[in-house]
Amino acid sequence: MAVAGWRRLPNLLQQISVRSLSSSALPEPIWQPPDEEASPSTNTAAMLYGPNDLRYVRLPLGPRPPPQQVRLEMKAVGICGSDVHYVRKGRLADFVVESPLVLGHESAGRIIELGEGVKGLKVGDRVAVEAGIPCWDTALSRTGRYNLCPRLAFHATPPHHGSMAQFIDHPATFCYKLPDSLSYEQGAMCEPLSVGIHAVQRAKVQPGMNVAVLGAGPIGLMALLGAKAFGADDIAISDIKTDNLELATSLGASVAICQSRGASPADVAAQIRAALPPRGPDVVIDCVGFDSTVQTALEACNPGGKVVLLGLGQDGMHQAPLALSTTREIDLIGSFRYNNTYPICLHLMKSRRVDVLPLITHRFSFDEDSLAAAFDTAARAAETKSIKVMFNLGDQDD
Amino acid sequence: MAVAGWRRLPNLLQQISVRSLSSSALPEPIWQPPDEEASPSTNTAAMLYGPNDLRYVRLPLGPRPPPQQVRLEMKAVGICGSDVHYVRKGRLADFVVESPLVLGHESAGRIIELGEGVKGLKVGDRVAVEAGIPCWDTALSRTGRYNLCPRLAFHATPPHHGSMAQFIDHPATFCYKLPDSLSYEQGAMCEPLSVGIHAVQRAKVQPGMNVAVLGAGPIGLMALLGAKAFGADDIAISDIKTDNLELATSLGASVAICQSRGASPADVAAQIRAALPPRGPDVVIDCVGFDSTVQTALEACNPGGKVVLLGLGQDGMHQAPLALSTTREIDLIGSFRYNNTYPICLHLMKSRRVDVLPLITHRFSFDEDSLAAAFDTAARAAETKSIKVMFNLGDQDD
Amino acid sequence: MAVAGWRRLPNLLQQISVRSLSSSALPEPIWQPPDEEASPSTNTAAMLYGPNDLRYVRLPLGPRPPPQQVRLEMKAVGICGSDVHYVRKGRLADFVVESPLVLGHESAGRIIELGEGVKGLKVGDRVAVEAGIPCWDTALSRTGRYNLCPRLAFHATPPHHGSMAQFIDHPATFCYKLPDSLSYEQGAMCEPLSVGIHAVQRAKVQPGMNVAVLGAGPIGLMALLGAKAFGADDIAISDIKTDNLELATSLGASVAICQSRGASPADVAAQIRAALPPRGPDVVIDCVGFDSTVQTALEACNPGGKVVLLGLGQDGMHQAPLALSTTREIDLIGSFRYNNTYPICLHLMKSRRVDVLPLITHRFSFDEDSLAAAFDTAARAAETKSIKVMFNLGDQDD
Amino acid sequence: MAVAGWRRLPNLLQQISVRSLSSSALPEPIWQPPDEEASPSTNTAAMLYGPNDLRYVRLPLGPRPPPQQVRLEMKAVGICGSDVHYVRKGRLADFVVESPLVLGHESAGRIIELGEGVKGLKVGDRVAVEAGIPCWDTALSRTGRYNLCPRLAFHATPPHHGSMAQFIDHPATFCYKLPDSLSYEQGAMCEPLSVGIHAVQRAKVQPGMNVAVLGAGPIGLMALLGAKAFGADDIAISDIKTDNLELATSLGASVAICQSRGASPADVAAQIRAALPPRGPDVVIDCVGFDSTVQTALEACNPGGKVVLLGLGQDGMHQAPLALSTTREIDLIGSFRYNNTYPICLHLMKSRRVDVLPLITHRFSFDEDSLAAAFDTAARAAETKSIKVMFNLGDQDD
Repeated sequence: MAVAGWRRLPNLLQQISVRSLSSSALPEPIWQPPDEEASPSTNTAAMLYGPNDLRYVRLPLGPRPPPQQVRLEMKAVGICGSDVHYVRKGRLADFVVESPLVLGHESAGRIIELGEGVKGLKVGDRVAVEAGIPCWDTALSRTGRYNLCPRLAFHATPPHHGSMAQFIDHPATFCYKLPDSLSYEQGAMCEPLSVGIHAVQRAKVQPGMNVAVLGAGPIGLMALLGAKAFGADDIAISDIKTDNLELATSLGASVAICQSRGASPADVAAQIRAALPPRGPDVVIDCVGFDSTVQTALEACNPGGKVVLLGLGQDGMHQAPLALSTTREIDLIGSFRYNNTYPICLHLMKSRRVDVLPLITHRFSFDEDSLAAAFDTAARAAETKSIKVMFNLGDQDD
Repeated sequence: MAVAGWRRLPNLLQQISVRSLSSSALPEPIWQPPDEEASPSTNTAAMLYGPNDLRYVRLPLGPRPPPQQVRLEMKAVGICGSDVHYVRKGRLADFVVESPLVLGHESAGRIIELGEGVKGLKVGDRVAVEAGIPCWDTALSRTGRYNLCPRLAFHATPPHHGSMAQFIDHPATFCYKLPDSLSYEQGAMCEPLSVGIHAVQRAKVQPGMNVAVLGAGPIGLMALLGAKAFGADDIAISDIKTDNLELATSLGASVAICQSRGASPADVAAQIRAALPPRGPDVVIDCVGFDSTVQTALEACNPGGKVVLLGLGQDGMHQAPLALSTTREIDLIGSFRYNNTYPICLHLMKSRRVDVLPLITHRFSFDEDSLAAAFDTAARAAETKSIKVMFNLGDQDD
Repeated sequence: MAVAGWRRLPNLLQQISVRSLSSSALPEPIWQPPDEEASPSTNTAAMLYGPNDLRYVRLPLGPRPPPQQVRLEMKAVGICGSDVHYVRKGRLADFVVESPLVLGHESAGRIIELGEGVKGLKVGDRVAVEAGIPCWDTALSRTGRYNLCPRLAFHATPPHHGSMAQFIDHPATFCYKLPDSLSYEQGAMCEPLSVGIHAVQRAKVQPGMNVAVLGAGPIGLMALLGAKAFGADDIAISDIKTDNLELATSLGASVAICQSRGASPADVAAQIRAALPPRGPDVVIDCVGFDSTVQTALEACNPGGKVVLLGLGQDGMHQAPLALSTTREIDLIGSFRYNNTYPICLHLMKSRRVDVLPLITHRFSFDEDSLAAAFDTAARAAETKSIKVMFNLGDQDD
Repeated sequence: MAVAGWRRLPNLLQQISVRSLSSSALPEPIWQPPDEEASPSTNTAAMLYGPNDLRYVRLPLGPRPPPQQVRLEMKAVGICGSDVHYVRKGRLADFVVESPLVLGHESAGRIIELGEGVKGLKVGDRVAVEAGIPCWDTALSRTGRYNLCPRLAFHATPPHHGSMAQFIDHPATFCYKLPDSLSYEQGAMCEPLSVGIHAVQRAKVQPGMNVAVLGAGPIGLMALLGAKAFGADDIAISDIKTDNLELATSLGASVAICQSRGASPADVAAQIRAALPPRGPDVVIDCVGFDSTVQTALEACNPGGKVVLLGLGQDGMHQAPLALSTTREIDLIGSFRYNNTYPICLHLMKSRRVDVLPLITHRFSFDEDSLAAAFDTAARAAETKSIKVMFNLGDQDD
């Protein structure tokens, strides 16, 4: 089994809080020595201690949220591929789990307490939680690209704890009120949907463009939903597994291509171009990130088009026919997380232009046994047919 | 010697003409069987018959230019690296010289005759010649990106003859009147300068941006001039040879970096970042196109920045750390030739914001002996210290 | 009756043809003295001789279409508000009907003959006809904004004849093949739909934006369809008449506002803002062009938003609170006709993202009696409840 | 005399501070009841009590700067036209001086104390002071357009005090270190230069564009400097007074047009078009804001061009031929203050691409007598030939 080895560690108590937003200070690790006397109340969280060492732990709860923050009772938290990757490897790319880390960054909850100075929100509000908090001191955050802020404090990215917990404190200004018609689960899905929305925004997708999506996992499906919402003409999606392709079609893909494992990038590119007659894709979103998919993307894309590099499936060097980028002016557009997307996601869901619920295949309560089962379900997606595994915490109608 | 083997072929006569612009027809090869009786007049041209087989030939001159075209007496034609490459290899990338081909695409001349329907130009006008003629039927040409037109007829790109000849016919609308203060040579330099201008336009260079240029050959220097004209803050330029770096500094580079041959891309990237304090380059223009330069570009570029892929030094696959593009949202922007740049080039030169003359290191007349000598000078640039080798045809003050 | 006075003028024969596209020549008036011997065949057309003097005339048909053009048997031609305006006044803005003018620019037909050099089309093809033909010699047309080409030859704009005729010749490259699933009427509707698409493209409408449309006439409804196709969140539409508001709602408007006649711009702006909670419109498209609507637009629009000036209801000076544009950075974006929109329109209709058929309220055959009746129906829209009046010529299933 | 009536009010003591940046709170009026015991130290400031009632007052100085702020000893503070307007009228547009207000927003100073948590700056640093502090909670500030933040706290805009004082506290992150080669005065000039830079950025000025600037006052000259720095081809500038036109020419204007007072907008537009042969202006920056200048701008501007509405010379309604915006697709672009410009300004001045010093025509020390004299000089610009009047406080070499 891919995910194993967690156990309860009842004596280690930690306060979970994303560090309060401070205007010119680099967020520092928030891991603090436990202070058992801090509060009589307790919190529980999914905390990673190292590779394959995920634990369900009790933590103290601070007396009240810091200024400008709210305390949230979490209601829905999804498991992302990166959470699974951290559990398996204890790291993701350059981010290494060196101190115990609360996982989770796809989440929604209910406000139970306001920190000093919070305006525009009240106790009882149901909110979606944006996972990344920028400083506002750098050129990138000030010009609107705050996802690239070098000091971004992002949930469950060391040294910042995540939101897979009973309670968290979070800056009020990155909590978005849920319309009455949307559930907490939909609120939590704003996070992965944002990744898809940001990718199509980076590529300036609009009517008049055909789009190809490489990879039909959760991110690929989100890119598909994003491309559709932004008005793409036809959308082809490809994967080496048939698993999610049927769902992709029901979500709006014009063509779903199950590529044979041995197919060359040139072959797959030709299939994609044939699937989008007469002109092929203007935008190709690579949600995988292997040599083969980058090559497919460049071969398939129309001259003057864009390849979005979204998937991070492979570290180190890629092999790619970059001269095609030059001679055809195909731009390779990097897309990392998102900025300013939550209001868009909520509006797309509220108006039913986007429906994310079909992606939620498995639901678990949040307790010690469920934690193991949920991660196991997510980690063995091929067997369990899981796409998005979601924790439901407490009363969802509250 | 790199370039050799040309000889005179006095009996082969060909009419040189870029095919007339026709609104919905794919330009077809213009190579026609010689028709010695077509005209009593003769033309001379530099025609490539195969690898290392460049010849100075006489060709017949048609009775008058086609409709909407003008007949030009060429006055200045530069030798481009691609001309040299064709001579050496008989091909460039996917373009193979299968029939004899007139070389040359950097050119200016004087109008000696008007085809039917030409307006706005008159005999005696001195003009710069834009080398690529699009059809206007495809989405790419109609949306302004006509350099990507799949039917582009570009000088000296098979099957289209170039302009290294005594006379050519050319669509009037792609001839640009030279201001009185500019010479034919400056007119011819519009072509390579356009490549630099297009690159900085694609990267949206403007004040507030630092730029790094990789490679100090003719294209690198043109990118440097373009970046400066568009208002870049500081510009660093690097090469493995010192040859042109001093010139680069006199043309406006803030820092010229002569990298040691064994330096790793990471080392060179660090040098470049150190040369542009405090923040490094926002745009890196790779005018070389090797694995090492692409890697340097991605490592050196600021998050949120752009790498322009301009040089085509290497066919096939590149090794590149593309995950950096994703995690830092560094876009790789392909830049191919140019569109709508000639008026800009002329205005930049006229107002002395750009001075291209220091790049012209060698001048030759256009006759059989000079042809060989000129190509030899261009081909052995390291020894001859040549940057731009220019043919001067006839009276330059005419 | 608003439209009157036409009568048959059997002896005046004219060849109808939009002048052939020529690469550097200014299109000149195509009105030629009749040449009764030119052809045994005849053509019929709706030709305007002056204010309230529209006639159904017979014209000779040239022997074959000019090079690069096709001869079309027209199948569907819509009446635009500008056609009605020309009939009533004999002019529109600065365009004055000084010679008899064939009206009509919303059209589709079937190819019956190919001119020399036409490729990619064949006899029998069903096509939508783009009404404006640019030269490709000016900076505006070469950079993609060919709708602004100073030499644009636009149907039914003096001195260029329109397409309200049995047969026309038209440049092949501005004929767009209809998908099998689309009717000729839908092909003809590409023209007004293009006006709406261009407006939302100029305003960069996309998900995350609320849109307000001022005016629920044909253009307003097209802007509404465009905004919806491009992914706008909520769309409010307002008019002083209730006539089309119900249709607007069925076409996708979130809110339809029937403003009282005496309402001040500030009042209407407040109504619009209240209709798009919580943040008001990011884009306001003024499809009317009166003082009152421009004022409403500026008052209603969010800071940082855009007002599209699309309607031309009023000549001369407007009264507008332009300081609001400065202090709120509300840009006023002019939108004139369209470029590069036909492929988008066809794809939107084919994929059923846009349905234009509900706008076609009245259909007429194309003969002398119908001509008068059709224009009368269009001119008295308030009484006839007409939105789009369409001529059907010949067998629509052919 | 336009400015009069100030007198000392020695007993009114006020603490001057721009409210500390707080992440979700609306900045509130910082006017506090005087607390004479707060500090033994004193501050002096130019405080406006009402129309023509500007006073030189002593204020207490708080014990130390708030967290994330620095305390600055001001060294250079310019007088802006808006400062003069406030003095004359007691208001500007909708902003009314209801409580005593410290004026001034063009300033630079030296750090004398750090508030808690300040990083990256130290005592003794010489800095330029950005005048507007956004909240970071609204969509406009988060997407980079923080100048439009509805909660922007801008110096000397009620209820926010300005910087015309001996000492101010200011958020560290909006203080920009001056390069050694730049003076405090140049630091203060970042503010008005930013207005010009923002305008040309909004219009996307670059090589290949001609620019016309209407109005040669301080803002017009700044727009001129901005257009030049961004690479405009030719720049024409016009005014009804000759006063600054010579300076404009020396700063880089290609043509300076002194328009006769009775000239119609059409006449002036024709003059401007003639001054920028052969094609007229692609961008017209209206730095005045009268009916006549807006009309001139629209008449003069090329089709497809942009008119920047920058000057606010006239409240209420403007008379403007807005149909020209539609039929020529001339966009009217509002430009208000600036965002993200200070680093650009500093780099432009450091590299000598922009020289603002010729605009500083008058210098005053900062004391009671000089205050009156300086405002008087600024208010009677026509007589005094003043452009920018600057206070120098203390040792400029410190």
